[in-house]
Amino acid sequence: MREAVGAPAPAGRPGRGRRPGARESILDAIRAAEPLSRVELAKITGLTEAAVSMTVRRLLEEGLVVETGRTPTGGKPRTLLQLDPIARLAVGVHLDEDATTYVLTGQTGGVIARLARPASLGDDRDSILRALAADIDTLLAGSGIDPARCLGVGIVWPGPHSGGTPADDTLPHLRGLRGEELGRQLSETTGWPVLVENDATAAAVGEYWVARVGPDQTFAALYMGGGIGAGIVVEGRAMRGGHASAGEFGHLCLEVFGPECWCGSRGCLEILAGPRTVVTAAREDRIAAAEAGLDPAQPSRTVTADFGAIARAARAGAPHCRALLESSARYVAAAAETVVNLLDIDLVVLTGPGFAAASAIYGPAIMRRLAPADAKTWHRNVTVTVSLAAATASATGAAALVLQSHLRA
Amino acid sequence: MREAVGAPAPAGRPGRGRRPGARESILDAIRAAEPLSRVELAKITGLTEAAVSMTVRRLLEEGLVVETGRTPTGGKPRTLLQLDPIARLAVGVHLDEDATTYVLTGQTGGVIARLARPASLGDDRDSILRALAADIDTLLAGSGIDPARCLGVGIVWPGPHSGGTPADDTLPHLRGLRGEELGRQLSETTGWPVLVENDATAAAVGEYWVARVGPDQTFAALYMGGGIGAGIVVEGRAMRGGHASAGEFGHLCLEVFGPECWCGSRGCLEILAGPRTVVTAAREDRIAAAEAGLDPAQPSRTVTADFGAIARAARAGAPHCRALLESSARYVAAAAETVVNLLDIDLVVLTGPGFAAASAIYGPAIMRRLAPADAKTWHRNVTVTVSLAAATASATGAAALVLQSHLRA
Repeated sequence: MREAVGAPAPAGRPGRGRRPGARESILDAIRAAEPLSRVELAKITGLTEAAVSMTVRRLLEEGLVVETGRTPTGGKPRTLLQLDPIARLAVGVHLDEDATTYVLTGQTGGVIARLARPASLGDDRDSILRALAADIDTLLAGSGIDPARCLGVGIVWPGPHSGGTPADDTLPHLRGLRGEELGRQLSETTGWPVLVENDATAAAVGEYWVARVGPDQTFAALYMGGGIGAGIVVEGRAMRGGHASAGEFGHLCLEVFGPECWCGSRGCLEILAGPRTVVTAAREDRIAAAEAGLDPAQPSRTVTADFGAIARAARAGAPHCRALLESSARYVAAAAETVVNLLDIDLVVLTGPGFAAASAIYGPAIMRRLAPADAKTWHRNVTVTVSLAAATASATGAAALVLQSHLRA
Repeated sequence: MREAVGAPAPAGRPGRGRRPGARESILDAIRAAEPLSRVELAKITGLTEAAVSMTVRRLLEEGLVVETGRTPTGGKPRTLLQLDPIARLAVGVHLDEDATTYVLTGQTGGVIARLARPASLGDDRDSILRALAADIDTLLAGSGIDPARCLGVGIVWPGPHSGGTPADDTLPHLRGLRGEELGRQLSETTGWPVLVENDATAAAVGEYWVARVGPDQTFAALYMGGGIGAGIVVEGRAMRGGHASAGEFGHLCLEVFGPECWCGSRGCLEILAGPRTVVTAAREDRIAAAEAGLDPAQPSRTVTADFGAIARAARAGAPHCRALLESSARYVAAAAETVVNLLDIDLVVLTGPGFAAASAIYGPAIMRRLAPADAKTWHRNVTVTVSLAAATASATGAAALVLQSHLRA
């Protein structure tokens, strides 16, 4: 069932319409709460014990799962199962405004090897592809792990579908690049199967694997980099929508008759309170700009870098920067409430460089917004957490998507 | 694998965490586009042809699927498959403000028998349960179909989790009723397994079955009755969320610092522009009230009935009623855009008595709101349609959920 390792396969996106089966249910359940016995697996997945036994036998034969002792409690002892973290591996690559991040990840989501480069990998398409291929080789060679265990490469960036940034303002070194095209070319250059995804969706999958969220938790990752997006994971799978552009959190409407957004609509979160809007406001406010060390006379650095400087100033107590972020956070919080109410989300994880830098403002704002109706009407307790792996969540998710697409079946 | 027909089973809600398998994929694909050959089924579901053949053989043995001739086109002839519409049946019951609707539905979603009663079925719990049980018997007896084919009863209403209406304003005859409790009692009274759901979620499932939407379409049904809600269907399954209250469309935020809502938050769609708000505004506007024949001196009828009167007046050209609905529609349209952007929805269906009465205003408003960004940024073409079965969509969906929960596995 698995594709030949190392064979150049057509670049692709995770299929939709394909539904997960017993294998994936069992692997997800073990990943979330290993070690587990077969009886516990049957309970968690809703599969019969016979079906669990049959599937586990195959997973043991393939080396994906290993036995790891027995339950110490009374009664009939039960053999416990866990994942072999390095049975299968994948490379995840995140092309971002400021940096290119590579990780090598196994089926538990742990980062086995990691590499970071400046964003600009070259001036033209060919040199970018050669640099990517060389870095992937370096990562694999440096890990000391047999490359035959690697299933392929996942590559993610703020495109290809992103409405998070104005169309003429894509990452300069990626301008004009289309997802399928990059995937195909990278596959030809490296010889690996390549999968392409949006970085916010990938971050959600990365957080899902790393945070060991159970497959029964409905989970949203809110991602802030140069723009703002969301990935939504339901029953362990990223929602991708009709055209693979689900998660356009930045284009939730928060003011019906609000200012025009670059997407063509009005009153979107991005235009009211996104990182680009925060950076523009700081550059136009002499005091905020001074607090953050932004020189309005100088050409803008990246949105992510400028936003990080504003967040650092706010953390150090600078009042104008803090006020700008608190104003933005009130809009982000209302948008988060909308997502939670629409999808009945249990867990919100803030991730990406923007939220990592300013979580002390955005996290409490979201919790304050949710509290009154949660107590009065919904009788629920939504958890809001800040990612501990924000810098690598998208790259980890990119690798996780490759593993997921091979481990199901 | 099926539960014994007619045996009192514990009242339940469709499981979550359980994932659909080959059976359900194949049944959904046939339902959406019958007749289909095995080769076509493999293509649509992503299953291997061997897996399709094996599953189809079982479905033929169980009588769920029947063979229906061969493809007339050149090449090797292929046997076509379709569903037997009356192989398995279920009863759906919709308890609404104004009426109680019963349908008997088979696995193609067609209504085989239907019954409507006034909303108030009795004064106390026991007489309501007895009336429900008697009506279900009448429906089945009148259909002339062997009751042994019936798998159970699905019952839905604007609760049990709904934040669409203020807590002290539940349907009077259902006040204090909790979902699990009603399900269990109805199961004891009737002897049928009973499943309980929110009416907006059920309407989405009903529309999905009736409209023969393909399992690869991401689909939202917006529902307006006494409140406003949404059901979202992804890959053929209703999203239910962490606590079975996904779809709280009425509590999307459209004004960050807007008026306080009865849910405890601020600026929600319900409080800005929901049917209850429209009705209150019409009763407070002397001219609008006169246009709609509402007497502010008289006690209010149900929200649904008053809203229907306002919609009829607007259709007849009454300017104040029309202006009230157009104002509401601008908010509903922005909220619809939020759902479409967040979930990358292909198809929006307007359903429920409110949208059925005022679709000529709400439908175009949603299309106008979506058009600019769809053209400029998203390069998509979202379809907005009005249900042709709005009166029975929730009841049909209630039955469909029962069938779905038995036909998978």
